[in-house]
Amino acid sequence: MDFADRLDRARKATGAAGLDALLITPGPDLRYLTGYPAVVLERLTCLVLPADGDPVLVVPRLERPAALASPAGGLGLRLLPWDETDDPYSLVTGQLRDPGRVAVDDHMRAATVLALRDALPGTEQTLAGAVLGPLRARKAPDEVAALRRAGEAIDRVHTRMSEWLRPGRTEREVGREVAEAIIAEGHERVDFVIVGSGPNGASPHHGLSDRVIEAGDPVVVDIGGTTADGYCSDSTRTYVAGAEPAADFAAYYAVLEEAQRAAVAAVRPGVAAQAVDAAARDVISAAGYGDAFVHRTGHGIGLEPHEQPYIVAGNTQPLEPGMAFSVEPGIYLAGRHGARIEDIVAVTADGVERLNRTPRGLVAL
Amino acid sequence: MDFADRLDRARKATGAAGLDALLITPGPDLRYLTGYPAVVLERLTCLVLPADGDPVLVVPRLERPAALASPAGGLGLRLLPWDETDDPYSLVTGQLRDPGRVAVDDHMRAATVLALRDALPGTEQTLAGAVLGPLRARKAPDEVAALRRAGEAIDRVHTRMSEWLRPGRTEREVGREVAEAIIAEGHERVDFVIVGSGPNGASPHHGLSDRVIEAGDPVVVDIGGTTADGYCSDSTRTYVAGAEPAADFAAYYAVLEEAQRAAVAAVRPGVAAQAVDAAARDVISAAGYGDAFVHRTGHGIGLEPHEQPYIVAGNTQPLEPGMAFSVEPGIYLAGRHGARIEDIVAVTADGVERLNRTPRGLVAL
Repeated sequence: MDFADRLDRARKATGAAGLDALLITPGPDLRYLTGYPAVVLERLTCLVLPADGDPVLVVPRLERPAALASPAGGLGLRLLPWDETDDPYSLVTGQLRDPGRVAVDDHMRAATVLALRDALPGTEQTLAGAVLGPLRARKAPDEVAALRRAGEAIDRVHTRMSEWLRPGRTEREVGREVAEAIIAEGHERVDFVIVGSGPNGASPHHGLSDRVIEAGDPVVVDIGGTTADGYCSDSTRTYVAGAEPAADFAAYYAVLEEAQRAAVAAVRPGVAAQAVDAAARDVISAAGYGDAFVHRTGHGIGLEPHEQPYIVAGNTQPLEPGMAFSVEPGIYLAGRHGARIEDIVAVTADGVERLNRTPRGLVAL
Repeated sequence: MDFADRLDRARKATGAAGLDALLITPGPDLRYLTGYPAVVLERLTCLVLPADGDPVLVVPRLERPAALASPAGGLGLRLLPWDETDDPYSLVTGQLRDPGRVAVDDHMRAATVLALRDALPGTEQTLAGAVLGPLRARKAPDEVAALRRAGEAIDRVHTRMSEWLRPGRTEREVGREVAEAIIAEGHERVDFVIVGSGPNGASPHHGLSDRVIEAGDPVVVDIGGTTADGYCSDSTRTYVAGAEPAADFAAYYAVLEEAQRAAVAAVRPGVAAQAVDAAARDVISAAGYGDAFVHRTGHGIGLEPHEQPYIVAGNTQPLEPGMAFSVEPGIYLAGRHGARIEDIVAVTADGVERLNRTPRGLVAL
């Protein structure tokens, strides 16, 4: 991955946006620009990227070797290490000459945002996402390949679901084994494990509970992790445990399958993000379940689990080749059950590629 | 855990600090105050805790059931759900009457901090950590018990290290199996896995690399995760793979053991945090390795891996019963090898309890 080119494009976009500098702390933006996967902790690590100068990395001295061992070490970046009892903010401000406007990393912690505000009292703070979001949203081919590998890894976990998911076990028992498998199948980190059985499936962001899965329960399993190269997976399948599902559930599951298919089919360059949302929503609304689809259709994915572009009503942004995002309509009947089908897709030169490929039909385990 | 009491104490401390309200987003502060383990994502979830009124939780509609299913659901909190195309910031500002000063969650993302700044243009923003940090630093007995369970879980992983760590394997191969074991032994999330072999052991925040471990290498293994109830583990042991270590390494390892023992022995109520740092540093400096101990001696731990109190020169804060933190001196010889010994300890009524109990001597595998 060509970090020097990314830094250069970010620097130019910073100037074009009328900003004096970007201030980037550990997280997906720092990893995107330099390859340095610094851990988010309380000590200040900050990439200062001026519009008209060379970037500098302020880093705690104990993290200097880790920074140098990362791809950032090969970029010729100047490193400014600080010791445990130093003031690191003065190292940042020392790189800036009375800036009018700086943009801070969207993910920067408030403790850092306010410390920088106080250290640069005459400077307006804006968000770096306005510059970096569009750059990150258009993935290069090596990034799409990394997302494809992440998709294959999470698909292998879904393929093994019958090893763990069965009536008589609690969601938490199942979830723990799924989490182990997320690591074993090729992720470095577990980002989330949702096992929503029976009525819990109607809570889209349910995690794990001690509920015992019963025969005939629909079970929504939404799982994702981060691979060693930093890219995320995210895929949802809905299973039925141990028996045939109820007829009312099977009826709306068929609607959901059709909605997900329609939304994926709508993806191609030039189409507005909101049109993909509408493609799923129209199918679900026409079948009378519109009120039960309580969230947007999807979110971008890359170095973080949720990023631009958001597939939501009101987002008129046209899709471009290289964009990658989830297509995950859901139907949720409070107190009864729910279902969701989620694939990550990438926009190609003339259409779409699905990065998750396990069967989408209802799987009885 | 008595969340109503925590909310009440936080509200009183908010008023005493001259603040109109705390604004708390997903993360350890929200979990501390309400028990709600909301995932940190881009949609706004915000607890508004006024100094002179009842708390309100602004929450995306799709996360309302998860919020209600958490302990927060039993607190009688008023929930204000918002839909995907609403402006959630107006829901927050609607709860505040022209506030002069609000404190934002130290972990709040900059994107949210600046959106709140723009939504409350006449309001000064400060940090909620000034109010919540001291409350969170003094753990109640049930919190110390949760940290004790986390310590036991990570100890079980260290006890199994001979299953994975041996010459001829890469750090990454070892690290992946360690990560699986972190989950299997009782964590819900892997927070970090450092396997620093040979010269990589001299980088305190090294992660994993493709370096093949060689016979006689010292290997620093620093691992931690988060349990289902939200509390963190963190323990470091240094191993020697497959042969006797070099004499120069064995010499300073004995110094390190003595330094760690001295620092733990210094812990009791009333002692300044910096005195614990000095206790370790004095031993290491006296042996001539002072420049090789490049970081502070420790950090608090609880609902996040690093929190107050910090065990560092300059921190004159007196230790109090219930405080929990790491004691982790290290010696790092750049280009050669390094070592660290880390236990979590809790301050008791009259001394200290170690929450990690695996042997601290050099373990040859």
